Amino acid sequence: MSMKWISVLLLLQLGCYFSPGSGGKVLVWPTEYSHWINMKIILEELVQRGHEVIVLTSSASILVDPNKLSAIKFEIFPTSITKHDILGFALKLTNKWTYDMPKDTFWTYFSLMQEIFWEYSDIMEKFCTDMVLNKKLITNLQESRFDLILADPIGPCAEPTTLSELMKKAEMWLIRTYWDFEFPRPFLPHFEYIGGFHCKPAKPLPKEMEEFVQSSGENGIVVFSLGSIVSNMTEERANVIASALAQIPQKVIWRFDGKKPDTLGPNTRLYKWIPQNDLLGHLKTKAFITHGGANGVYEAIYHGIPMVGVPLFADQPDNIERMKTKGAAVRLDFNTMSRTDLLNALKTVINDPSYKENAMKLSRIQHDQPMKPLDRAVFWIEFVMLHKGAKHLRPASHDLNWFQYHSWDVLGFLLACVATAIFVITKCCLFCCQKFSKRGRKEKRE
Amino acid sequence: MSMKWISVLLLLQLGCYFSPGSGGKVLVWPTEYSHWINMKIILEELVQRGHEVIVLTSSASILVDPNKLSAIKFEIFPTSITKHDILGFALKLTNKWTYDMPKDTFWTYFSLMQEIFWEYSDIMEKFCTDMVLNKKLITNLQESRFDLILADPIGPCAEPTTLSELMKKAEMWLIRTYWDFEFPRPFLPHFEYIGGFHCKPAKPLPKEMEEFVQSSGENGIVVFSLGSIVSNMTEERANVIASALAQIPQKVIWRFDGKKPDTLGPNTRLYKWIPQNDLLGHLKTKAFITHGGANGVYEAIYHGIPMVGVPLFADQPDNIERMKTKGAAVRLDFNTMSRTDLLNALKTVINDPSYKENAMKLSRIQHDQPMKPLDRAVFWIEFVMLHKGAKHLRPASHDLNWFQYHSWDVLGFLLACVATAIFVITKCCLFCCQKFSKRGRKEKRE
Repeated sequence: MSMKWISVLLLLQLGCYFSPGSGGKVLVWPTEYSHWINMKIILEELVQRGHEVIVLTSSASILVDPNKLSAIKFEIFPTSITKHDILGFALKLTNKWTYDMPKDTFWTYFSLMQEIFWEYSDIMEKFCTDMVLNKKLITNLQESRFDLILADPIGPCAEPTTLSELMKKAEMWLIRTYWDFEFPRPFLPHFEYIGGFHCKPAKPLPKEMEEFVQSSGENGIVVFSLGSIVSNMTEERANVIASALAQIPQKVIWRFDGKKPDTLGPNTRLYKWIPQNDLLGHLKTKAFITHGGANGVYEAIYHGIPMVGVPLFADQPDNIERMKTKGAAVRLDFNTMSRTDLLNALKTVINDPSYKENAMKLSRIQHDQPMKPLDRAVFWIEFVMLHKGAKHLRPASHDLNWFQYHSWDVLGFLLACVATAIFVITKCCLFCCQKFSKRGRKEKRE
Repeated sequence: MSMKWISVLLLLQLGCYFSPGSGGKVLVWPTEYSHWINMKIILEELVQRGHEVIVLTSSASILVDPNKLSAIKFEIFPTSITKHDILGFALKLTNKWTYDMPKDTFWTYFSLMQEIFWEYSDIMEKFCTDMVLNKKLITNLQESRFDLILADPIGPCAEPTTLSELMKKAEMWLIRTYWDFEFPRPFLPHFEYIGGFHCKPAKPLPKEMEEFVQSSGENGIVVFSLGSIVSNMTEERANVIASALAQIPQKVIWRFDGKKPDTLGPNTRLYKWIPQNDLLGHLKTKAFITHGGANGVYEAIYHGIPMVGVPLFADQPDNIERMKTKGAAVRLDFNTMSRTDLLNALKTVINDPSYKENAMKLSRIQHDQPMKPLDRAVFWIEFVMLHKGAKHLRPASHDLNWFQYHSWDVLGFLLACVATAIFVITKCCLFCCQKFSKRGRKEKRE
């Protein structure tokens, strides 16, 4: 649950230059990898609708790539961090979190986790400093008269402030989940649940891949990917996995970028990149082996595909646990699972019809909404630009400090009242008792 | 706030006979007066979309009238209560609550309120008994294979149960307010805020009325109504009001069904019925004098008309207080207001531009929604019929009892742990102290 703040996008109102005729001007503060892949869908939709979108990114960015053809504009600032540093950190993060930490005791796990977070925090701070101390850039941005900042708070950077203050300042929180993924709980009117907005109907596969998929016949295929950060694994793990996959009657499409495992079966093909959404939307797809990244989980929900989850790090264990509880996934431990474990898990989600039924139930919830999540996201972005914020949705609790928020002031006052009352009553009782006992003694003496 | 449950409509799933081709079958349990006027809009929309709507009503109904031309069907059950009883109760309720109770002390106010509620509850129970003990009717309803009940819980009647249980059973709560009227606060995913769904653009006025409105010139008009229950008032109050209205430069359209006040000015016309929404949407309308019923307040919000509120009973004081806080209304006390009070209030809301600006701000919030509230209401009604409920939105808290809900079980366990720990530590300390003091004494003796 503590990981859920990573699924938020914040809308912060800046200026008020937008008019419906001209379109607005949006400044974007993104983060890397899957967060960017996801956010870009909203940015492209904004550009389509006539808004100007400028992405603020450093010279060390990996996927946030201005060279790719797009109408999105980029403002690149120089930084002393290199692409090599980022790639190195990503590798260290995934390796430590995936292989080392699960074997550790609670305390070493905790200190390793802290070490990773400090390192991440240092990199973010460096980016932020290089950006805000770049006078030319800041002047340029100030003169650009933006209407809105769309920020991913997993890499917070701002005017001096805390993450909590930044989130309080936001006009709207676009939350990248929905009630197919979440369990029902109270929320606030300035939260908009837009999970799955990046999903779309499947496009045709490349010819070679389509032929391979069709060759699976009635058994269908299994899609396997560990996401945009992890493309590699130890030889031992790869062999365990490959030998399990070799035993199923389905054909397997595996996104894998390492040494070809010795145990690889003829039914399994390796690809450095796969069109994941198109594969999950293919009629022949029976199951999805996933690390449980939110993007992939939502594509599986959208297309109603049951999952075998091998969560690695961050919010992935939580995501898979939710899918397991909703009956649409089986969860395995990446480090300890045996060939038989993976084989049984695959057989279960493919042959036990309840998994497909539950995945389809989630899919229907995702599809049958009053309005498409991407349209809702864009609606509220335009609303904040047009109405200079969304003040009517902002709870007053954001203006309270912690002891007001928890009603300690009220509680304190009430306790003081009770204490005073008890004190007065006790004093009165004692006084009366003394009076009576004095009179009693007096009467006795008489 | 305590009155806010009266603005809810409940969706209770019954059967699962609905298919998108054929349309669903909806059983409606309505209440009288403004609640019915409001609910009917949803029913007419459902009928338009091919659903079969059957309204369950008694032979004593006042506004729930099967004789009016409509595609809505009615199932009328006989009751020993007469229309006369209902009209008598409504008159007693409004008179007591409006004239007697405000003059009373807190305790007499409270006992009068209790008396009214008991009487209301008795009438509702009688209706309910006459309905559920009518074997022929119940058999008929059971055989009709309904998909859904749409119930107004202000007149609760059910399966033996409490209001709270009934509300827990509901798949969705359609709440007849929105964030122009409400202050931001947490809510649950199965709440849908549909306030203002009954509002629509103004239609042309009747010829005579339009001529009168046009004769107001640049000054415009003021619309005055006390709603669907109250159409009468004491002669003294009517004269105070009429004399104030006579002094403003605007023309006044007053919905009034009593003896014509002696002080009535030539600028004021009395009508037994007015097309309120069309008048509030007229370009010449400057202000609305209202008792603060939710329907009227929402029509004023929709058209951006500032209000002078003279709340009478039920949720009206709360409604007007909200509009006052949002800067779109001035509040007066119906019993004590003088001619000058009303005159000043009217001058304020008409001449101080902030009232119009704030009313327009609320109007923009009402209009600029991702989806129209009536469409959202119908969407969720169809969703519950199609998906046999909306289980994915229902919070698990509905299945907890009160001490689980308030975490008393968790708290109790934790307190027990703390108590045990304190007990053990104290015992240990005492034991050690005794040991040390014994040894000390022993050493002293030696």
